[in-house]
Amino acid sequence: MKNVRVRALANLALVKYFGKRDLQMNLPAAGSLSLTLEPLSTTTEIAFRPELERDMVLLDGKKAADKFASRVSGFLDIVRDMSGTSEYASVVTENAFPTAAGLASSASGFAALAYAATKALGMTIDKEQLSALARRGSGSAARSIPGGIVVWNAGEKSDGSDSFAYPVAGPDDWDLRVVIGVADPGPKAVGSTEAMELTRTTSPYYREWLDSVHIDLMNALRAVEQRNFTDLGEITERSALSMHAAALAGRPGILFWNGTTVEAIHLVRRLRQQGTEAYFTCDAGPQPKIVCTKSDEDTVASALESLPGITRIIRCHLGAGVTEI
Amino acid sequence: MKNVRVRALANLALVKYFGKRDLQMNLPAAGSLSLTLEPLSTTTEIAFRPELERDMVLLDGKKAADKFASRVSGFLDIVRDMSGTSEYASVVTENAFPTAAGLASSASGFAALAYAATKALGMTIDKEQLSALARRGSGSAARSIPGGIVVWNAGEKSDGSDSFAYPVAGPDDWDLRVVIGVADPGPKAVGSTEAMELTRTTSPYYREWLDSVHIDLMNALRAVEQRNFTDLGEITERSALSMHAAALAGRPGILFWNGTTVEAIHLVRRLRQQGTEAYFTCDAGPQPKIVCTKSDEDTVASALESLPGITRIIRCHLGAGVTEI
Repeated sequence: MKNVRVRALANLALVKYFGKRDLQMNLPAAGSLSLTLEPLSTTTEIAFRPELERDMVLLDGKKAADKFASRVSGFLDIVRDMSGTSEYASVVTENAFPTAAGLASSASGFAALAYAATKALGMTIDKEQLSALARRGSGSAARSIPGGIVVWNAGEKSDGSDSFAYPVAGPDDWDLRVVIGVADPGPKAVGSTEAMELTRTTSPYYREWLDSVHIDLMNALRAVEQRNFTDLGEITERSALSMHAAALAGRPGILFWNGTTVEAIHLVRRLRQQGTEAYFTCDAGPQPKIVCTKSDEDTVASALESLPGITRIIRCHLGAGVTEI
Repeated sequence: MKNVRVRALANLALVKYFGKRDLQMNLPAAGSLSLTLEPLSTTTEIAFRPELERDMVLLDGKKAADKFASRVSGFLDIVRDMSGTSEYASVVTENAFPTAAGLASSASGFAALAYAATKALGMTIDKEQLSALARRGSGSAARSIPGGIVVWNAGEKSDGSDSFAYPVAGPDDWDLRVVIGVADPGPKAVGSTEAMELTRTTSPYYREWLDSVHIDLMNALRAVEQRNFTDLGEITERSALSMHAAALAGRPGILFWNGTTVEAIHLVRRLRQQGTEAYFTCDAGPQPKIVCTKSDEDTVASALESLPGITRIIRCHLGAGVTEI
């Protein structure tokens, strides 16, 4: 069987995904909208081989931890079921950014794995089916199949076949920028699935959170269509704050932020008062992510870089969907 | 007319008050439960004098700013209406803690003013009526009339006569402690009434927030009755986080915290993991407030004092209601 090497990018949700309608199938309770981000990439090489007695997983040059390796194997089982093969695979995967630190490495990782595995097995599968497949590995991986600006349909079917992502703007259609501050390169305190489930089952705000996502998503789509950055930015910041607020009201309250995250929110608001159009967002980790346009990127980057507690920044722009390399 | 000098203490809500059902009358949309805190005191001396042509207000040794002076005068107009006098007053008020920095100086201030003014005018008014009157000056001032542990009834009448606070435990009944970290002695970024109104009118979580307060209040009352500190502490932290979460989901999101506030939340959680029963709370400002029992006070105080960004700490214990001195 052939060796396949693919590259996938991480993505940043502007309208957040936070809450599942089906845990097993990774089906979201609401849709979401994201940016596919260059240069946050995962490169994965896979080869299925008859002589292997189990899947072999190397992550960033080292034998992967059992938990991650078995997650990869579980995903490959789904692909094997679909294709009819029984061969195990060797998987070599490299992340170009800190793993498991709220920088969505599982999104690019499972997008890359889904594409590499189906390609290596010679499967005929379109991009929407591929997105739905990647979703099985990690929900947000569905959004790392297309490039540019992406919408992930919540869908309604129990088999998940209508829950995939598709592009609404190409990587060159709108020059949006994201400046990420690395506030704490350590692993997450709470995994996102666990946090979502705790929020779904204990937060009094969960139902209202989901209702607000539907509205934010429709408005964000219109803002993308009209290239209205102010509208998109306001929805972005609101969606992030509302998501974190819903989690914070869980029992016990989930707090993904650290002090630097909060100072970054205040920084973004000061920047806006000074005329720099910058909007805050943040995921299941403390890293502040600031969305802006190309003309404000330098201002945002130097402001974020000088915030105490920020150890480094990563400047991102829109990138392409998953590709063979 | 006689000179009257009174002393009132600030209070800290464990079950938070955040949302009004009547702005004009300062009527809360839900009840709340608080600790009356020694040594956070306001001392107010008042004298009504026929020769004055307007109210004269000194705050912390200086002529009060117009906004504060007219708030005091507006309150004294209510008292003058009730008593039938038309005399203006000289008011000298001193806070033993930073004014307008989320440390509830308006609560102790209007409690002291209500008591001093009615006493100076020789009015016959019981403690519940006095609490309802103090409420007109600042909602939470209703809770600074009694001492110890206090419940403020939301009430339902439009004239506010059933919206007053009463004690549920005396200052010596339970040795609770509060350690306050002064994270930023500056004035608040958003006033609490403005923040409440923005949350009420724009936060998708406001309705659920109010519903949760009713439940938290009933459970907190039971915890006080049973002297169950674990239950009271958990409700305290949950109530604070849910309140801040409801505000954070406002449009625009209201963020009372700074970086130090968030690090204090993480600190409290580390303390609990290490066996120190400490619970976080926070009001319309960045100051973290940690509730504990006497046996853990030293541990909590030294941990909070060494948190970066904390300029000083204030150790508090339960105190008495408003008194003439």
